[in-house]
Amino acid sequence: MEKWMGGDMHPSYRILMGPGPSNVHYRVYQAMSNPVIGYLDPQILACMDEISEMLRGVFQTKNQVTLALSATGSAGMETAYVNFVEPGDVVVIGVNGFFADRMTQVASRSGAKVIRVEEEWGKIIEPEKMIKALKEHPEAKICGMVHGETSTGVRQPLDEIGAYCKGKDMLLVVDAVTTLGGYEVKVDEWGIDVCYSSSQKCLGVPPGLSPITVSSKAMEVLRSRKIPVQSFYLDLILLEKYWGTERVYHHTAPASMFYALREGLKIIFEEGLEERFRRHRTLGDRLKMEMEGLGFKLFAQEGYRLPMLTSVILPDGMDDVKLRSKLLNEYNIEVGGGLGFLKGKVWRVGLMGETCKLRYIHCLMGALGDILT
Amino acid sequence: MEKWMGGDMHPSYRILMGPGPSNVHYRVYQAMSNPVIGYLDPQILACMDEISEMLRGVFQTKNQVTLALSATGSAGMETAYVNFVEPGDVVVIGVNGFFADRMTQVASRSGAKVIRVEEEWGKIIEPEKMIKALKEHPEAKICGMVHGETSTGVRQPLDEIGAYCKGKDMLLVVDAVTTLGGYEVKVDEWGIDVCYSSSQKCLGVPPGLSPITVSSKAMEVLRSRKIPVQSFYLDLILLEKYWGTERVYHHTAPASMFYALREGLKIIFEEGLEERFRRHRTLGDRLKMEMEGLGFKLFAQEGYRLPMLTSVILPDGMDDVKLRSKLLNEYNIEVGGGLGFLKGKVWRVGLMGETCKLRYIHCLMGALGDILT
Repeated sequence: MEKWMGGDMHPSYRILMGPGPSNVHYRVYQAMSNPVIGYLDPQILACMDEISEMLRGVFQTKNQVTLALSATGSAGMETAYVNFVEPGDVVVIGVNGFFADRMTQVASRSGAKVIRVEEEWGKIIEPEKMIKALKEHPEAKICGMVHGETSTGVRQPLDEIGAYCKGKDMLLVVDAVTTLGGYEVKVDEWGIDVCYSSSQKCLGVPPGLSPITVSSKAMEVLRSRKIPVQSFYLDLILLEKYWGTERVYHHTAPASMFYALREGLKIIFEEGLEERFRRHRTLGDRLKMEMEGLGFKLFAQEGYRLPMLTSVILPDGMDDVKLRSKLLNEYNIEVGGGLGFLKGKVWRVGLMGETCKLRYIHCLMGALGDILT
Repeated sequence: MEKWMGGDMHPSYRILMGPGPSNVHYRVYQAMSNPVIGYLDPQILACMDEISEMLRGVFQTKNQVTLALSATGSAGMETAYVNFVEPGDVVVIGVNGFFADRMTQVASRSGAKVIRVEEEWGKIIEPEKMIKALKEHPEAKICGMVHGETSTGVRQPLDEIGAYCKGKDMLLVVDAVTTLGGYEVKVDEWGIDVCYSSSQKCLGVPPGLSPITVSSKAMEVLRSRKIPVQSFYLDLILLEKYWGTERVYHHTAPASMFYALREGLKIIFEEGLEERFRRHRTLGDRLKMEMEGLGFKLFAQEGYRLPMLTSVILPDGMDDVKLRSKLLNEYNIEVGGGLGFLKGKVWRVGLMGETCKLRYIHCLMGALGDILT
């Protein structure tokens, strides 16, 4: 192959109402087309400082180590375990969905002995149940929880669990991939030690980066490791030396994605966090009401439904794949199918960041109205 | 911080003549501003297929498993070791520079027992010397080499070493981060089993992705592992299930970066590989001649100098940092400083991909002429 015969690529302009990625503000696309600069250029370092500062804002934390990993949210999960687990360490994880289950796999690959605290998918893990398990395993080094379970649409309450971990020799690791930027994630107040997210959901930035924040308690644990972190790429001590004041080269900064994240975060603070959370709550409620009106049943436990991701049970006889491809191909609307055993039974409808607008609820309802009647 | 007071970011339009990133074609920036789509959207899957096909072209391979990792070139290095090393495996690595040394660290963190075959920085590792070491360690599972050592500007010959590994129970892992797209990397002909690169050097795409190709011999080794790969994010079996025909969700595809890589690769095949290599050779020679004319001495061993990265020794009394910041701040030209013990002594001047143009040699010479006279 000396010449490539493929033509231009013109992706369709989808309304992204799946579990992420979500739609991207045009200012973020514009920011990405700024010229790339070097990984030690004073201008990229200033950009990284601004990203850290704004991420502290959305994470509601004062943690010095607050940065964006140069990989997607899945790498955030891996970073949280590969850095803090040494072979044989006990990790207690609340498992009530696909991503919590993945967390146990990632922890286990990092060498952890994993204790699973199981709950039915679609339900929260009662804080008392989780705390009971932690009491039964006082040797546990980490308690792992998913804040917004993307597979079920459940929002896990974290404050009581955080309060329990706070005084102990135990780190609370929280997956905020789906919630950050669309719901309160109070890292300091709740006592979270390691919290990671992704760029492409409620932050409204293309996929490719994973914001993470790490408490000083967790950094102390990291510095007292006996063996080096298995991963060089995700080693938080090396990353801190690049993002912090030392500026030691670690990897080539993905400049375009950093520009995008910076702009996405700016847009968040222009709107204001409170207003943004309110928008997600209000429109999430509206979507749920409309979906129920069409005969879908809500899947997640009442009182703990994520505003930015609504899981609905398909009415009997509705053809999941056929309907979703009709939505995609004829209406340019993406909604998510079920993961794991929920495949074919459940839809996951996202209203994240830029996609969280009344107009898109109207589009989806219009399309479903056309198709179903 | 409820409002962010920072203004717009307008990075300077640098001429990127460092060790990468290099300048990016405007068509690549345009491609990045295409709308993001979902990770299982038929259009993103088609885009990924095209990327694989074009990467097979630049890697000069028929390897089925040829894809782009959703992280930078450093993660490519990690992927090459974390997948193929099991605890205690012996790995023989040729060490004649900063990145070869990093390779030993990455291999060691993956659990390998590392045998270092040392050579002075700036020199190649003589193939006979490398093969001798491999003969002394017939138990070795992997031989690791850096094709283009970014810290020294040396191009390592690989065909004899590859020929030696071919018939044996040994995998040849090659770092082509700096060379791919600017010099021949004949994966199949040379007998390379795992070869990784980066998007931001001779491929002319922003940093953030790491192309990788894996032979069927290496995939067999991977499938016969006793314990799972430590990294979930970089697990090639899972990645193959997403990039291959099964299309099993693994992580959220960084759509914008995929668009960029696709366009960058298209531009490469429009130019033609041979013509592109010729351009890098011709202008690399020209740059070397001009730098010598200014009193710089060439650092890398004659006959094995990389066309796309020229390492030069600073004339006595020349102030490295002062001069480079003058170039950056007054002339908007980035050149690279030395890494490791070469800091302050050597410059690394890149001519990669889009930056590899006569006009930029003229700009650099003009600027240096102004400053030094």
